[in-house]
Amino acid sequence: MIDWTGMRVLVTGGAGFIGSHIVDRLIAEGAVVTVFDNFSTGFREFIPPRDRLRVIEGDMLHAAQVARAVKGVDFVFHLAANADVKNNLSEPCKCIEQNLIATQNLLEAMRAAGVRNIAFSSTGSVYGDATIIPTPEGAPFPVQTSIYAASKVAAEGLLTSYAVGFDFRTWIFRFVSMLGPRYTHGHVFDFWRKLQVDSTQLEVLGDGKQKKSYLHVEDCVSAMLATISAARDAINIYNLGHTDWIEVDDSIAIITRTLGLTPRLQYTGGERGWAGDAPRLLLDTARVRALGWRPRKSIEEGIVDTLRFLMHAPYVLRRAERDAAAASG
Amino acid sequence: MIDWTGMRVLVTGGAGFIGSHIVDRLIAEGAVVTVFDNFSTGFREFIPPRDRLRVIEGDMLHAAQVARAVKGVDFVFHLAANADVKNNLSEPCKCIEQNLIATQNLLEAMRAAGVRNIAFSSTGSVYGDATIIPTPEGAPFPVQTSIYAASKVAAEGLLTSYAVGFDFRTWIFRFVSMLGPRYTHGHVFDFWRKLQVDSTQLEVLGDGKQKKSYLHVEDCVSAMLATISAARDAINIYNLGHTDWIEVDDSIAIITRTLGLTPRLQYTGGERGWAGDAPRLLLDTARVRALGWRPRKSIEEGIVDTLRFLMHAPYVLRRAERDAAAASG
Repeated sequence: MIDWTGMRVLVTGGAGFIGSHIVDRLIAEGAVVTVFDNFSTGFREFIPPRDRLRVIEGDMLHAAQVARAVKGVDFVFHLAANADVKNNLSEPCKCIEQNLIATQNLLEAMRAAGVRNIAFSSTGSVYGDATIIPTPEGAPFPVQTSIYAASKVAAEGLLTSYAVGFDFRTWIFRFVSMLGPRYTHGHVFDFWRKLQVDSTQLEVLGDGKQKKSYLHVEDCVSAMLATISAARDAINIYNLGHTDWIEVDDSIAIITRTLGLTPRLQYTGGERGWAGDAPRLLLDTARVRALGWRPRKSIEEGIVDTLRFLMHAPYVLRRAERDAAAASG
Repeated sequence: MIDWTGMRVLVTGGAGFIGSHIVDRLIAEGAVVTVFDNFSTGFREFIPPRDRLRVIEGDMLHAAQVARAVKGVDFVFHLAANADVKNNLSEPCKCIEQNLIATQNLLEAMRAAGVRNIAFSSTGSVYGDATIIPTPEGAPFPVQTSIYAASKVAAEGLLTSYAVGFDFRTWIFRFVSMLGPRYTHGHVFDFWRKLQVDSTQLEVLGDGKQKKSYLHVEDCVSAMLATISAARDAINIYNLGHTDWIEVDDSIAIITRTLGLTPRLQYTGGERGWAGDAPRLLLDTARVRALGWRPRKSIEEGIVDTLRFLMHAPYVLRRAERDAAAASG
């Protein structure tokens, strides 16, 4: 196992959902952590002040700021991203900027500073409409169906090119959707938010039959750290996900049961939730499981943990309402 | 077959090697052609003035210029690119700008103008160190080994995402290296240029055993037009290449025989010509051959045609010398 004690680690997007859980774990393991975040989707509440924690509010598109953050660092977790899959068509350039140009800025800053270890959060949606399910890392060359996934594939390509050309070592994690405390977007959040407004009915994107895998964020962080310890090639690409998967309708049943509600369901129809949505997403995780890692929490526990968090974090809903008002006005 | 008569076609990079051959064919087929080129690697000599030909000198990174070029167009051939594979590590950002950001500018301009048909020159190097040779379009999800190929994969992802999200129709061609008149970079040009300076010796990158497929540019253009006529899905991805391939040493033998020279060969060593170079590149072209297309010219004819062109186009060497002088001083 890697000993993180005293390691200087930069976590971009460290105030976000997954990033802040990585920060918690790294600090618990003894690392000296720098969070770099623009707080557009991250929350100060997720990264309370602690010893060995430094927070930089900055923009990944600002090369000089990134260069300063990278200085003196041993290892980078690159989590900063535009994670809004569903709305990627409304702002295609933003997705490329925040997921690809930001990554290139980071890599260039690392190259200049001689920092060469980087873990990256990619996505299972890089497999597009997968023809093999569960989908292994070496699935047939996929066709990208969303600008979000295209931007992640592009960033993966940069990382591996830098590994080949500039002696970087990289860990690329293709995630299913995560669940758990601090999850502030995605289907559980969307359903919960709609039910806060009107608990008698619930609009469901698609036909409710989309079936996807989810992983608890704590299992995700364990898998990342275990992989970084065990997989030491220049390029390490790993699917991260649960062996289980769940239909939207079953997910809704868990949500409404947990909240004690019985809304009337209204389906927008079609097998996809949105343009480019993959109606079925289950990753083959044999590669990461071969390292000895197993998920400890069920998908249901992930959904319930997400809801419990949301019920006790009113600031999340407040920001969502504020952002929605700003977007429409 | 598509009737190109009167079709208004934009060719980005239309003053370049492959672009200018597409322009020739389209004009012969009756199309009304706009060339958009910044003449950084393209030549005025490749696109002599003709009826139904308009030339715009412009920069793909200048969104307003691209928007003007796209106006009123029916079909776009997007050939403008940074094609300097070998030196991609020296300027990684330039490669992303010219191959990805340029493509996004074009797609955004097309979307705004309601132009939705686009053919794109990708590359067989997107397959990285292919595990299956000859490599089919559905090869296992490759790991990118060069920023050049990563930028092309990224551009492919944008094109297919726009096809899914914005009803574009796209033809993506993954090329082997092309040969023939107007080829002003690549191994034949490099060897020829070195032999112009010193005909008694020749430096060879790698061990001379790299083995790759090449296609004559005239066969390439025929394949593109045949595919656009026959393949009418929203997303059409085709390898283009020869069924034959050739070792660097055999290629050198053809070059020196054609030039009547007997240089001493000096190998830099290693199985790769440069970082990220795939030592073996042969594409499975069953998909395009199923449409009835066949290459008409051998690789040897391609090499000889390239040399004949270079011998009669002194301006090509002059510019290369000028660029080299500018880069070094």
